[in-house]
Amino acid sequence: MKFVSYTGSDGIGPRVGALLKSIDIPQECIVDLERGYALYLKEVLADPFASQIAAIRIPHDLRALIVGGPLSIAAAREALAHVSRTLGDAGYERLLTARVLQPVSSTKLHAPIARPGKIVAIGANYSGHIAEGRDAGVLRELPAYPVAFLKMPSAVIGHDDIIVRSRHTEELDYEIELSMVIGKRCRNVRAENWRDVVMGFTIVNDVSMRDLIVQEKPTGVVFQGKNLDTTCPMGPCIVTEDEIADPGCLDITLRVNGQTRQHDNTGNMIFSCGQIIEYWSSRLTLEPGDIVTTGTTSGVAGFNRRFPERLLKQGDVVEAEIASIGTLRNSVVDENPRSTSIHTA
Amino acid sequence: MKFVSYTGSDGIGPRVGALLKSIDIPQECIVDLERGYALYLKEVLADPFASQIAAIRIPHDLRALIVGGPLSIAAAREALAHVSRTLGDAGYERLLTARVLQPVSSTKLHAPIARPGKIVAIGANYSGHIAEGRDAGVLRELPAYPVAFLKMPSAVIGHDDIIVRSRHTEELDYEIELSMVIGKRCRNVRAENWRDVVMGFTIVNDVSMRDLIVQEKPTGVVFQGKNLDTTCPMGPCIVTEDEIADPGCLDITLRVNGQTRQHDNTGNMIFSCGQIIEYWSSRLTLEPGDIVTTGTTSGVAGFNRRFPERLLKQGDVVEAEIASIGTLRNSVVDENPRSTSIHTA
Repeated sequence: MKFVSYTGSDGIGPRVGALLKSIDIPQECIVDLERGYALYLKEVLADPFASQIAAIRIPHDLRALIVGGPLSIAAAREALAHVSRTLGDAGYERLLTARVLQPVSSTKLHAPIARPGKIVAIGANYSGHIAEGRDAGVLRELPAYPVAFLKMPSAVIGHDDIIVRSRHTEELDYEIELSMVIGKRCRNVRAENWRDVVMGFTIVNDVSMRDLIVQEKPTGVVFQGKNLDTTCPMGPCIVTEDEIADPGCLDITLRVNGQTRQHDNTGNMIFSCGQIIEYWSSRLTLEPGDIVTTGTTSGVAGFNRRFPERLLKQGDVVEAEIASIGTLRNSVVDENPRSTSIHTA
Repeated sequence: MKFVSYTGSDGIGPRVGALLKSIDIPQECIVDLERGYALYLKEVLADPFASQIAAIRIPHDLRALIVGGPLSIAAAREALAHVSRTLGDAGYERLLTARVLQPVSSTKLHAPIARPGKIVAIGANYSGHIAEGRDAGVLRELPAYPVAFLKMPSAVIGHDDIIVRSRHTEELDYEIELSMVIGKRCRNVRAENWRDVVMGFTIVNDVSMRDLIVQEKPTGVVFQGKNLDTTCPMGPCIVTEDEIADPGCLDITLRVNGQTRQHDNTGNMIFSCGQIIEYWSSRLTLEPGDIVTTGTTSGVAGFNRRFPERLLKQGDVVEAEIASIGTLRNSVVDENPRSTSIHTA
């Protein structure tokens, strides 16, 4: 199942939906899970309180739905299954009219988790990326553990949102990363039990400011180099873990303006998803809706001085694609100091 | 006005309250703001929908109340003023019975913001702390800007909650910090306008793991050294900015087991609250409920090799006191690996 956060063509949202492709419908659609679950409760269980129960069980915030746990996830699955069955009875037009179903193309997708509780961003987890970092004099040895830093929740943006190149950076870069979505509050999880606490996967583009990272080095912290507004594109969906037979065997590709810049397979990760969960849950409590990334592969722009033109600039279109999840697309716009002055009183 | 998040002796909470001291009551109390506002609407405005309006205007989550903006803050002030007036009419017993009023001593205080959107933690902002860091070979020159790192929201605990010394650290340390609570979404705020976007102040104890900071140094990031569970005690309240004539003139004192370890005045900060807001809002959007600290002063345990016994250990009681705000108290307990295994399936 592929969860999305979306706003419909009627401007109502964010709401929680599931992606649906089927031979019974002419194009990929979003099933609105609250409305779909209400339909299921009414039509299958004859529940007189169908819409009230659906409104509680399927919150409009995907993070809240994850907090809702197995009961909310099961309700979402019932909704999707019921809508799929109804399609077979030629219910497409009826479902469109009731806004239970909407073509993806008519909606706006948001980041699946608009404000994660925390984003644990793993660095240096592909040997190719470490090697190019060593060549650039930036990264060092193979890490002894899955080194991480924090990205701030307010940097998150969604599919087709704009990456704003801050006026404070000249070296804006991309980093595609397979990312885990935590489904359950947990500590001290063993590697082989990672599926008990990871509810699904999404894509994060760990947008980085190479010049700011260098400037910050003397201070001993990396903050701005990884954390300005709009530097955490996430999406387009969360695919549930049951649809990923092996997260260590997924093709991962990033393109800028159609040109492939990063291409690898998650089989080349140094630390597996399970090992990352084991290490970090031995240190920290992970909570529902937290995001844990898995590092990026080689091909970033900032580590290759031969191609300075590969750094992101106004007008660039970045597509981050991971097999079984989808493609996260964002374009780049230079900061306009005036337009970002949300408050200047 | 001093906002708190609390659970009453009846176990109902968290709820939002305000601290109240008055010659009309025998001890410091918490005014329950939702119930107090409902009373105001009913008794002063004869509002037939008093409790429904109060339930919306005064959410149970203080961060949500701040998102509620000037209308919710004004409602909270009406509630407090009405309860104070009612006390004068010998209404103390009636207000206790209605649980509009509860003695602080019978309640449990929580962190004012249980899960901030982000915590921007300023480092190296007192010359005394930089000097002791230089002596210890850790900190360096005076910073050219208010250097910061991120603390993770899930590290936050409240007054009288336990600081757990992780089994991964031998060098647990304290750092008292005056901290700003953002009241309004903003960017590009000028220093002199900081009061437009800071709704109040609280105390943060930036609990730090000195050995982990040293261990992480080769990786180029500081994460664990500042971010394990329970390493962000916050509270006991948020005092609104109108009660702080000058945040650059507050005595700041940290004691361990009654012994003063840190003592200074915020007048010795290198960057003022206004300058910190100007710098960081020029880089990042600040959002309601975000926390921005202002750095700690000299006297931390880990920078003084002459007194290794000053590092925090099981049974220590840490009190962080800032004038006009209050005292944030936490005791230290060693991690029990079994008791923290929230999920080990």
